[in-house]
Amino acid sequence: MTDRSGIFITFEGGEGVGKSTQIRRLADRLRRAGYDVLVTREPGGSPGAEAVRHVLLSGAAETFGVRMEAILFAAARNDHVEEVIRPALETGAVVLCDRFVDSSRVYQGVTGNLEPGFIEALQRIATDGVMPDLTFILDLPAEAGLARARRRGGSDAPDRFEKEEVDTHEKRRQAYLDIAAAEPRRCRVINAGRPEDEIAEEIFKLVEAATEASVAAEQVS
Amino acid sequence: MTDRSGIFITFEGGEGVGKSTQIRRLADRLRRAGYDVLVTREPGGSPGAEAVRHVLLSGAAETFGVRMEAILFAAARNDHVEEVIRPALETGAVVLCDRFVDSSRVYQGVTGNLEPGFIEALQRIATDGVMPDLTFILDLPAEAGLARARRRGGSDAPDRFEKEEVDTHEKRRQAYLDIAAAEPRRCRVINAGRPEDEIAEEIFKLVEAATEASVAAEQVS
Repeated sequence: MTDRSGIFITFEGGEGVGKSTQIRRLADRLRRAGYDVLVTREPGGSPGAEAVRHVLLSGAAETFGVRMEAILFAAARNDHVEEVIRPALETGAVVLCDRFVDSSRVYQGVTGNLEPGFIEALQRIATDGVMPDLTFILDLPAEAGLARARRRGGSDAPDRFEKEEVDTHEKRRQAYLDIAAAEPRRCRVINAGRPEDEIAEEIFKLVEAATEASVAAEQVS
Repeated sequence: MTDRSGIFITFEGGEGVGKSTQIRRLADRLRRAGYDVLVTREPGGSPGAEAVRHVLLSGAAETFGVRMEAILFAAARNDHVEEVIRPALETGAVVLCDRFVDSSRVYQGVTGNLEPGFIEALQRIATDGVMPDLTFILDLPAEAGLARARRRGGSDAPDRFEKEEVDTHEKRRQAYLDIAAAEPRRCRVINAGRPEDEIAEEIFKLVEAATEASVAAEQVS
């Protein structure tokens, strides 16, 4: 654990749910309100993490098994935590991160190739006590999210999605909702099917409430 | 854990204590006695592990912290375990490995840069239940080991060793002896200051005894 005075907020959810848009909007609004804000993302986010990411995307990774790949992702996350996130929190900044531990739980967990105990042990090592204060899970039915992701890609892909793709997306969505149910203090499920402005407003209000609660807690202690 | 019928033997100790010589001799003798023997080593030992080792030795590693480096070593070990050691044990082979978990404990632990809990958590992930049945700790006072290592290098280095070098060597030696004391069933401390033949004979006898015990245990179960 560390001497933290900042606030650590992560954004989670499937492809096309609008995470990066909402992060940008929240960062702008917090900065206008006078907060020091750091925006970062996973995988990557620090030079060491980018180096590992490069290895994972290179030809060398073809010989790696799923466990080794998962450990390498954990190494990248740990570097990102130690070099970027923890130092920023120690200066009192608000850190907004696009994907974090829940993505690993959901994406590695849903494939079924890794035991949950192994994934959790890796996450403890990767985060070393730096867990989000607040996690927004942007929730959208599979069809809507995939359609958005395709439109954004500017593709003229057929309307008919592969059933397998939709099924996988739904499994991940359910896995995110399960995390939210298990950790209600940290996680907030956001209905991402509404207008962008409405979502941004809800997120900002929730962050404001958390910030005030955090300041109040500090004054008590 | 896995369905193991082979025997997993590791060799540990500082530089110049004669690990590779004794491994070669034991492998020869076991093969002559009809055993199927696999000789391997760390770091490395599998294509994936070699790839990670390459990253660790490359320029990219300069940006890595000690924790990230330790996690990458764990990734390499896990690949070595899953791709080489576990499959060989499942076929019933005797696996002889030059350095394994105890080297990480001793070399990463003695520097004091990593907490013991972190090192142990990593080792659990790396080995995934594949721990040695028998570990030979080749023990030698620092001066003798360093002198041997230098002679082997064919160097005309001065006889006067740096005090720091000797101190570090002694600390590692003590850390190995502490492991042996904590895990007496698995670890055997071998006085490596004796003639090569005498050491080889002692090691072979200990392996024979362990093999018979293992066969007896299987017959009981």
